[in-house]
Amino acid sequence: MTDQRVAELVDELPDGVVVTDPDVVAAYRHDRAADPGAGTALAVVRPRRTEEVQAVLRWASAHGVPVVPRGMGTGLSGGATALDGGIVLSTEKMRDITVDPVTRTAVVQPGLLNAEVKKTVAEYDLWYPPDPSSYEICSIGGNIATNAGGLCCVKYGVTTDYVLGLQVVLADGTAVRLGGPRLKDVAGLSLTKLFVGSEGTLGVITEVTLKLLPPQKVASTVVASFNSVAAAADAVVEITGKIRPSMLEFMDAVAVNAVEDKLKMGLDRNAAAMMVAASDDRGAAGTEDAEYMARVFTEHGATEVFSTADPDEGEAFVAARRFAIPAVEAKGSLLLEDVGVPLPALADLVAGVEKLAAQHDVMISVIAHAGDGNTHPLIVFDPADADMAQRAQTAFGDIMDLAISLGGTITGEHGVGRLKRPWLAGQVGPDVMALNQRIKAALDPANILNPGAAF
Amino acid sequence: MTDQRVAELVDELPDGVVVTDPDVVAAYRHDRAADPGAGTALAVVRPRRTEEVQAVLRWASAHGVPVVPRGMGTGLSGGATALDGGIVLSTEKMRDITVDPVTRTAVVQPGLLNAEVKKTVAEYDLWYPPDPSSYEICSIGGNIATNAGGLCCVKYGVTTDYVLGLQVVLADGTAVRLGGPRLKDVAGLSLTKLFVGSEGTLGVITEVTLKLLPPQKVASTVVASFNSVAAAADAVVEITGKIRPSMLEFMDAVAVNAVEDKLKMGLDRNAAAMMVAASDDRGAAGTEDAEYMARVFTEHGATEVFSTADPDEGEAFVAARRFAIPAVEAKGSLLLEDVGVPLPALADLVAGVEKLAAQHDVMISVIAHAGDGNTHPLIVFDPADADMAQRAQTAFGDIMDLAISLGGTITGEHGVGRLKRPWLAGQVGPDVMALNQRIKAALDPANILNPGAAF
Repeated sequence: MTDQRVAELVDELPDGVVVTDPDVVAAYRHDRAADPGAGTALAVVRPRRTEEVQAVLRWASAHGVPVVPRGMGTGLSGGATALDGGIVLSTEKMRDITVDPVTRTAVVQPGLLNAEVKKTVAEYDLWYPPDPSSYEICSIGGNIATNAGGLCCVKYGVTTDYVLGLQVVLADGTAVRLGGPRLKDVAGLSLTKLFVGSEGTLGVITEVTLKLLPPQKVASTVVASFNSVAAAADAVVEITGKIRPSMLEFMDAVAVNAVEDKLKMGLDRNAAAMMVAASDDRGAAGTEDAEYMARVFTEHGATEVFSTADPDEGEAFVAARRFAIPAVEAKGSLLLEDVGVPLPALADLVAGVEKLAAQHDVMISVIAHAGDGNTHPLIVFDPADADMAQRAQTAFGDIMDLAISLGGTITGEHGVGRLKRPWLAGQVGPDVMALNQRIKAALDPANILNPGAAF
Repeated sequence: MTDQRVAELVDELPDGVVVTDPDVVAAYRHDRAADPGAGTALAVVRPRRTEEVQAVLRWASAHGVPVVPRGMGTGLSGGATALDGGIVLSTEKMRDITVDPVTRTAVVQPGLLNAEVKKTVAEYDLWYPPDPSSYEICSIGGNIATNAGGLCCVKYGVTTDYVLGLQVVLADGTAVRLGGPRLKDVAGLSLTKLFVGSEGTLGVITEVTLKLLPPQKVASTVVASFNSVAAAADAVVEITGKIRPSMLEFMDAVAVNAVEDKLKMGLDRNAAAMMVAASDDRGAAGTEDAEYMARVFTEHGATEVFSTADPDEGEAFVAARRFAIPAVEAKGSLLLEDVGVPLPALADLVAGVEKLAAQHDVMISVIAHAGDGNTHPLIVFDPADADMAQRAQTAFGDIMDLAISLGGTITGEHGVGRLKRPWLAGQVGPDVMALNQRIKAALDPANILNPGAAF
C-alpha cells in the first residue's frame, strides 16, 4: 500500500527516483552506527539533480514529512538513521565532478566517494587532502555534512578548510549558492562554513566547490613502540610543539594485536602503544623531521623505533593503522567513540578509558589521531549478551562524560548524529544549545530536515 | 547634557568606561573608511571585561540603542561607522593574552594588536600566521570580525583558519563560549566559524582562542618586473597550479613609482607590473621553489628577475609592497577597493580597472594578493574637487560590478561594512540575502548590533 503523499512524489520525479520496495527501504534504515532506535522510511529517494532535490523538499514541506539526508551511509553516529513516517534522501546517484586545474578547484556532486575525488583530481596532478579512514567508502557529501577529519588533519586541517562553495537546497526547496571558486571572500555571513558540519539539519548539499593543493610529497615514516601510553602521549605533545608532522597516529595494545592477528606484519605484540608518524616536508627537511621524531620517541622510552623513506614500506604501516577498526571489529560488535581533548589531556583520556573498560568489564581498544587529540575508543561487545551490551552502552556515555570533564569534545570528526545527542548539552551548555536551536528554527522552522539529529 | 539612558549606563559600569566628552566621541565617528554618512554616538564605551560588555548589551537591548562594536578603527569598509543615537563599543582596553605552548594556542582579548599577538607568541617560539598589511595597527578582534586576510594567506589561509574558539556576547547580553583549545571538534553547528567575519552584527567578541604554528622558516624571495600586467597574471596562475608559495604579491606601475618616490630603493620605474614572491619551504626545497618561480617569471617575459635567500633583503621588498598603500595615499585621498576574482580572471580584472580609470578620469593603482586573486584597486582623488570625488565614487561601484561580472567578490578580506552594502545583493542574490537576514533576525531580533553594516 503506497501512501497517497508518496504517490504524489513518485509522480513529480523521474521514474525510479522514488523507491518504496520494502527490501530497499529496509536497507536504508541504518548507517554504520546501527542505531537501535531506527525507524522505517515511507520511501527512499535517490535524485540525480538539484532540481529533483528541490522537488523533494517542496513536497516534504507541503506535507510535513521529515527528510533524512544520506550519503553512503558510512556515518558512525546515527546521523542518517531512518525515521518512521519520513523519507531517506540518498545523494548516491549525484556523482558528477569537474576539475579546474587553473583555479585548482573541483566542483563535485555529493555522492562521489572521497577516494574517487582524490583519484580524479590526481589525474590533474592535484590533491584533495582530507582522508577519513573510511575514504574508500564514504561520500564527499557526507564528509561535508560531518566536517570529516582523517589522518592528515594534523598538518592539513579538516574538510571545512577545503570547502570554498556549496549549493544547498533549503527546507522549503529553495536552492542557494554559497561561496564559490574564490580563495578569499568575506561578502556576507560565513554561510558556507555554517552548512559544513550541520549534519543535514539545515539543508541538503547538492554541489560543492573544493579547494585543491599541489600533490603531496612522499613522506618519511617513523614507527615506534612504547611500553607506556603516557610516554607515547608525552612524545606527541613534544613533537607538535616543534614541527608539523603530516601524520601522528596512535594504536593501543589491543589494536596492535588485533591488526597483527590479521596482517602478520611483525608488529610488537608486547607494546602498550604504537605510534605511526610521518613528515611530507620535501627533501632533506622531511628526513630531518623523521630523525627528530625518532629521537623524541627514543628519548621518551620507545622500545623500538623504525624509520623509512620508502613510500611502500611507510604505506604498509599507515594501512595497518587504517585496518585497526576492522581488525578490532573481528572481536565483536563495536561502539565506536570519537572523543577529543586538548593535547595535554591525551594521556589522561586514554588512562581514563582504560579504567572505564575495567569498571564496566568490556574490552575497549583506543586508536587516535594523536596529533589532534582526537581518539577513537572502540568498545567491543557481544550483542547476544544483553548485559554486556548494556555495559558497553554505559561505557560509551561515560567516555563522553570523561572527555567533557577533561575540557574535550564528544565528537572530533564523526558528528553528533542521534547516538551522541543526549551528551551535547553537557559539553556546550544551555546557552549554546539555544543558539543552535535559534539558527535551526530560522532556517528550518517546520523541522523537516533530519529532525532529532545533532541537537 | 547627558542622555538619561547614558547616565544609567555610566552608573552601571566602572568609572571611566563610558565616555561622553564630545572630542573623544568625535574621534570615534569613523574608521579608516571615513564614511561620509557617519553619525555621532551618544557615548563611547571602553570596557575591560566580558561582564562589562554584557552590561552594555543588556542596557542597549533594554533601551533599543544600537551598538557599533569597534576594534582599533582600522577597518576600510565603514564597519565601525558611528551612528546617531547609538553607542560605540570599543574593545581597545581588552588586552590580555595567555600563550599555551603545550596546546600551541593563545587565548587573547580582542583589543590586542595583530602585531602584539605575533610578538608575544614568538617569545614561545610559535607563530600566528595571518598578516593583514595593517598588522601593526589593527586589532585581533577586528581581524576576526572581518575574517581578515593578508600576504601569507596564499599558503597559510585566512583568520578563520586559526580561530579555534570564541567567547561572544550576544545582543541580549548573554555570554557564550564557542569551540575551545581542541584541534577537531564537530559538536553542534559550526558557530565559531559563523561569528568569524560577521562584522559585529551577531555578537561582540570578548575572547578568542587562536591556533598557533611552529615558527615560519626563512623565506627565499623572488622579485620580478614585467612590461605587461597580463604576463604577470599568467605567471601567477602557472605558479599556483604547481607549488605553494608563501607569498605572491602584485604591484602595478603607479604603485611601484609611488613606493620608489618615497623609498628610493631602485625599483624599475618603467615596469607595468612588479611581483614579489616567496617560498618558506625548508632548505633546498625553498631554493628550488624560488628558482622555479624565477624561471616561470622569465618564461612569461619578465624584464628583470632578482632572487635572494637573505631574509633582510627579502623583507625590504615585502616592506615595499606593504608600503604601497601609504605611498599611493600621498598622492591624494583614497577609496580603497578589495575585490577578488577566481585566479584566471585576474588579468581581466586589472585590465578592466585600467579602463574604468580612463573612463572616469581618476588615477587607480592596483596592488594585489595575486596568488589569492584578491586585488586592492586604490582610487586616488582630491576631496576638494567635488566632481572628481563623485567620479571616484562611481569608479568604486563600477569596480565591484566588474568583479561580480567576472564571477568575483566585492570584498576578499576587508568586509562589506557600510560602504559596500549596496553591492552585496548584486553578488550573492536575493535568496542568500534572505538567508543572511534570517540568521541575523534569529540572533539579534531587535537589530541592536551594528545595524546597517554588512547586510
